Amino acid sequence: MAKISGRNKLPGVVTKVVTDKLMAKVEIDAPGGIKLVAIITRDAAEELRLRKGMKVTALIKATEMMVVAP
Amino acid sequence: MAKISGRNKLPGVVTKVVTDKLMAKVEIDAPGGIKLVAIITRDAAEELRLRKGMKVTALIKATEMMVVAP
Amino acid sequence: MAKISGRNKLPGVVTKVVTDKLMAKVEIDAPGGIKLVAIITRDAAEELRLRKGMKVTALIKATEMMVVAP
Amino acid sequence: MAKISGRNKLPGVVTKVVTDKLMAKVEIDAPGGIKLVAIITRDAAEELRLRKGMKVTALIKATEMMVVAP
Amino acid sequence: MAKISGRNKLPGVVTKVVTDKLMAKVEIDAPGGIKLVAIITRDAAEELRLRKGMKVTALIKATEMMVVAP
Amino acid sequence: MAKISGRNKLPGVVTKVVTDKLMAKVEIDAPGGIKLVAIITRDAAEELRLRKGMKVTALIKATEMMVVAP
Repeated sequence: MAKISGRNKLPGVVTKVVTDKLMAKVEIDAPGGIKLVAIITRDAAEELRLRKGMKVTALIKATEMMVVAP
Repeated sequence: MAKISGRNKLPGVVTKVVTDKLMAKVEIDAPGGIKLVAIITRDAAEELRLRKGMKVTALIKATEMMVVAP
Repeated sequence: MAKISGRNKLPGVVTKVVTDKLMAKVEIDAPGGIKLVAIITRDAAEELRLRKGMKVTALIKATEMMVVAP
Repeated sequence: MAKISGRNKLPGVVTKVVTDKLMAKVEIDAPGGIKLVAIITRDAAEELRLRKGMKVTALIKATEMMVVAP
Repeated sequence: MAKISGRNKLPGVVTKVVTDKLMAKVEIDAPGGIKLVAIITRDAAEELRLRKGMKVTALIKATEMMVVAP
Repeated sequence: MAKISGRNKLPGVVTKVVTDKLMAKVEIDAPGGIKLVAIITRDAAEELRLRKGMKVTALIKATEMMVVAP
């Protein structure tokens, strides 16, 4: 994973995968009680064989992240 | 924060803000030892008065997140 | 809304919400006769209780916008 | 413009272009008093010869837009 | 196509279009044996009348591209 | 590379890297004479040690790609 330019790499465990005809929703538990949700293609979910309990890394480009102040 | 459609909201503390003429890099410590990096506009960093020690929320749309399998 | 780093915040009124199993299409009328279309998760559309006639704000990060010259 | 898959096409007038070494910030006045800000490459700003007073179209993919409820 | 700020314009031929209620998957053969996959709205796929054999251009903003080193 | 959900993986050779304080522009020659341009963080460019002549893969999520019809 160190060789991908994307700056944000969050380790986690897949808790749920829901697939539709083209897309898939992947729910991931990350450290510190953080819940993540990724929408990817169904093709990708099948190719990666994503399933509950699987260890994965969520990858986010720094330019895709917003910041919200309280 | 509950009223934004973006699914991924990670609480954290700003550890560093570096600004250039147009852009700013914001480093954030999230729970579980996760380090985040967001690239936003300098205008936004100034408007939000982002600085070290400030509590913020990183916001990421579910469609912007990739998944990497081991 | 002033505290989100995303630079583009367009006020509007929801004119139509169409949901599929995972995703939702939200059509919004913005000022000046502009028609917007956002694709978000169905979960988000339900959580925000989006429906026709509701006032919302479309949010777009400056790095996600392209410019087209005539 | 009708032949681009991106769903959101906002007409406007460039009010300001600020360039850095790699990036450029383009401020655009859209109808209804909406102010837009796009961050694009400096190369693109130069190729399109963007300058104050120029009519342009802001282009945003539907999947890049979030919705915020009041 | 020269007047769009998006820096990456890949010519190709549509090899497959699969539509769901809201989204469409467009598979494109680009030069050099490259296979591309775009997820766009069904509305866009219909408006552009995308179909097998059609020549199109895939458009990607430079800030949306990651780089992976071997 | 087969284990990343991102659907578009274009092999290429770096032809130029230009860095600014926060960002870097990476120009890549892909097969079939395609020229690619990625804007990533300077941190990433340094971590991956990107330089002219290096073989890399450009990675693009399917939802980030638009389609343009002639």
